[in-house]
Amino acid sequence: MARKNAFYAQSGGVTAVINASAAGVIEAARDSKVIGKVYAGRNGIIGALTEDLIDTSKETKATIAALRHTPGGAFGSCRYKLKDLETSRRQYERLIEVFKAHNIGYFFYNGGGDSADTCLKVSQLSETLGYPIQAIHVPKTVDNDLPITDCSPGFGSVAKYTAVSIREAALDVQSMCATSTKVFVMEVMGRHAGWIAAAAGLAQEQDGDAPHIILFPEIAFNREKFLKKVQQTVKKYGYCVIAVSEGARYQDGTFLADAGSTDAFGHKQLGGVAPVLAQMVKAELGHKYHWAVPDYLQRAARHMASAVDLEQAYAVGRAAVEMAEAGDNAVMPAIIRGKGKKYSWAVEKAPLAKVANVEKKMPRNFISRDGFGITAAARDYLLPLIQGEAPMPFKNGMPVHARLKLTPVPKKLKGTFEI
Amino acid sequence: MARKNAFYAQSGGVTAVINASAAGVIEAARDSKVIGKVYAGRNGIIGALTEDLIDTSKETKATIAALRHTPGGAFGSCRYKLKDLETSRRQYERLIEVFKAHNIGYFFYNGGGDSADTCLKVSQLSETLGYPIQAIHVPKTVDNDLPITDCSPGFGSVAKYTAVSIREAALDVQSMCATSTKVFVMEVMGRHAGWIAAAAGLAQEQDGDAPHIILFPEIAFNREKFLKKVQQTVKKYGYCVIAVSEGARYQDGTFLADAGSTDAFGHKQLGGVAPVLAQMVKAELGHKYHWAVPDYLQRAARHMASAVDLEQAYAVGRAAVEMAEAGDNAVMPAIIRGKGKKYSWAVEKAPLAKVANVEKKMPRNFISRDGFGITAAARDYLLPLIQGEAPMPFKNGMPVHARLKLTPVPKKLKGTFEI
Repeated sequence: MARKNAFYAQSGGVTAVINASAAGVIEAARDSKVIGKVYAGRNGIIGALTEDLIDTSKETKATIAALRHTPGGAFGSCRYKLKDLETSRRQYERLIEVFKAHNIGYFFYNGGGDSADTCLKVSQLSETLGYPIQAIHVPKTVDNDLPITDCSPGFGSVAKYTAVSIREAALDVQSMCATSTKVFVMEVMGRHAGWIAAAAGLAQEQDGDAPHIILFPEIAFNREKFLKKVQQTVKKYGYCVIAVSEGARYQDGTFLADAGSTDAFGHKQLGGVAPVLAQMVKAELGHKYHWAVPDYLQRAARHMASAVDLEQAYAVGRAAVEMAEAGDNAVMPAIIRGKGKKYSWAVEKAPLAKVANVEKKMPRNFISRDGFGITAAARDYLLPLIQGEAPMPFKNGMPVHARLKLTPVPKKLKGTFEI
Repeated sequence: MARKNAFYAQSGGVTAVINASAAGVIEAARDSKVIGKVYAGRNGIIGALTEDLIDTSKETKATIAALRHTPGGAFGSCRYKLKDLETSRRQYERLIEVFKAHNIGYFFYNGGGDSADTCLKVSQLSETLGYPIQAIHVPKTVDNDLPITDCSPGFGSVAKYTAVSIREAALDVQSMCATSTKVFVMEVMGRHAGWIAAAAGLAQEQDGDAPHIILFPEIAFNREKFLKKVQQTVKKYGYCVIAVSEGARYQDGTFLADAGSTDAFGHKQLGGVAPVLAQMVKAELGHKYHWAVPDYLQRAARHMASAVDLEQAYAVGRAAVEMAEAGDNAVMPAIIRGKGKKYSWAVEKAPLAKVANVEKKMPRNFISRDGFGITAAARDYLLPLIQGEAPMPFKNGMPVHARLKLTPVPKKLKGTFEI
């Protein structure tokens, strides 16, 4: 058979819409005249290393379509980083062996910055080893920190969930503040960049609306200034709602909360800044508090996904396949925002060399001068990304999610590979 | 004017649909030929005591209709309990003075068990003082612990939110568990009864589905048994998802987590059992964990409300007015489940004397024999309550919520009243 097969894998933290990208890749590949089957890596790149491949051709059309309304990573994702070519050479070689054994000529890697780097290296090494692979990176990350692309699929949905949830909770707090909770702290994801915290700011439509304070990793935490602002807000409005990024830190870089352990990428595992702040408020100002940490709920909330985000996630999946068909290599489909006043977007090609290992920071002019809110520029950027709702089917009161067969592709290589 | 006015107040913790009950009361009263205006208490009963009344007749029809999709308590709620007639006699007398001054003949009190008690006492004392008030209790509580009524408005929505959210988060955890988080703990509300924790069990549709463990306040926490079950689950499925009630406690009654402070009703303010369990798992079994505490997000989540719950919340509001029109006193509209196999419900009258200070416990046969799950009986009871979605209008990516004028009713009494 002349057609080469494709490999698709999900990498890093999953999102509410990463499976929509999977659907985009698989559906476009099924339509393709040059691509054979799509084999998915079970648990991401580990599936390729261990030759644990899933034959997506065994899934029905309806199941693949249902991926559009199924959060999480349907084929399994992983936190497993291939390092540079010298350190991880054996891993890269193994990937090529597996790809060769299964006649795989296309590598679609759906992830964030680390995955873009892996994708680029696979492309480079496959040339060197004489089995050239077209490697296309499919962007995904709730952290919204990929460069070139205007936004990262997955972010718009967590942004919408965050803005809606903090608005709803704020209405609750506001109605009880005369005799009960006066300070409410909601912790959101974002290790290094305050994109999700900034999205909480979209809940504010009029003066006095929550959130009254946003704490970003970009702005060094100042205890006195913070407590003063809390007190002023409670005095003025009767209550104070705070959105805090998990990565909020002091001037010296110390995180406000630090669970102490690190993941495979060497990132600190955070969590728990909300209770730290709440207790600080209680101890210093005496206000009754409540705090919330939605954690995975926020990035899995397909039920509150942004229609724009869902469409973009699907589109970058399809575009990746189209780029592969066109012969592209070491590229990423990026979302490019139109110039007009009305929001528009298109998918364009970005070279992976310019994507890998570059972290997009939030511009300083997105954060208000006092460091506790977002600016009109931030709002102009963020608001289009949460437009539209993305209803999903329900049955018997509960959402219907894809249940895949996950049929394994028979192994062709001898022995096992220790990862 | 012959018509007597009505007083309406929201009490205790608010819900995603308590404002739908307010809409039911106000819209039915507007239709009524015997009831005059509806005055709402600002911040609940405190508004009556301080003569801080809101004239709901100043709100447009559209605004009142919009209450159906606005979470929180639109007129303000409070945690303020009137005690027995001896201790709080001055407060009860003050209520009657305010009601008399504003020609109020109907008292609609929208709350849980404590409010039912207050409502009954207002009815009794108003007779004694020679200014009889018809007092109707409008049921509301996410805790689902009111007696006689089959369920409490507000519960169905938090149940649906909880089941949907833990399902979504579980899909996330499942996809990452090979290399990342293996144990996920989600804390839900429920001080004394595990109704909300039980609702998490609705996420489980097939063997192996999350949640794998539910911890109820009704079942004494056994550390060894719990850790063994976690380990077995991780071994079998690769991950373990746990729903835990904030009221989970040891055999001796000690809560697993206890924030230490108490509210105006003398209830302990809880929060933080999820991190306690997660750290226990980490310390004893070494698994990587994540935990979530949605806190107010769960009871404010109008965006994931149950259509059945919303309809019932509205219906009990309307029914309260109809009961008042019919001359009833010291009653509560209760939701009565039909006998047939297909779920049906009707609103019937329940005497407040049988409601006040009675806490409905979850039947033991709703909890599985091992204490870690729900039974078919629980599922039969719970599933009808989360049926149907309740879409709300969105504008510019965000939900549209009612913004009330909250026009004060001019005061008629001299002096102030210290609460």
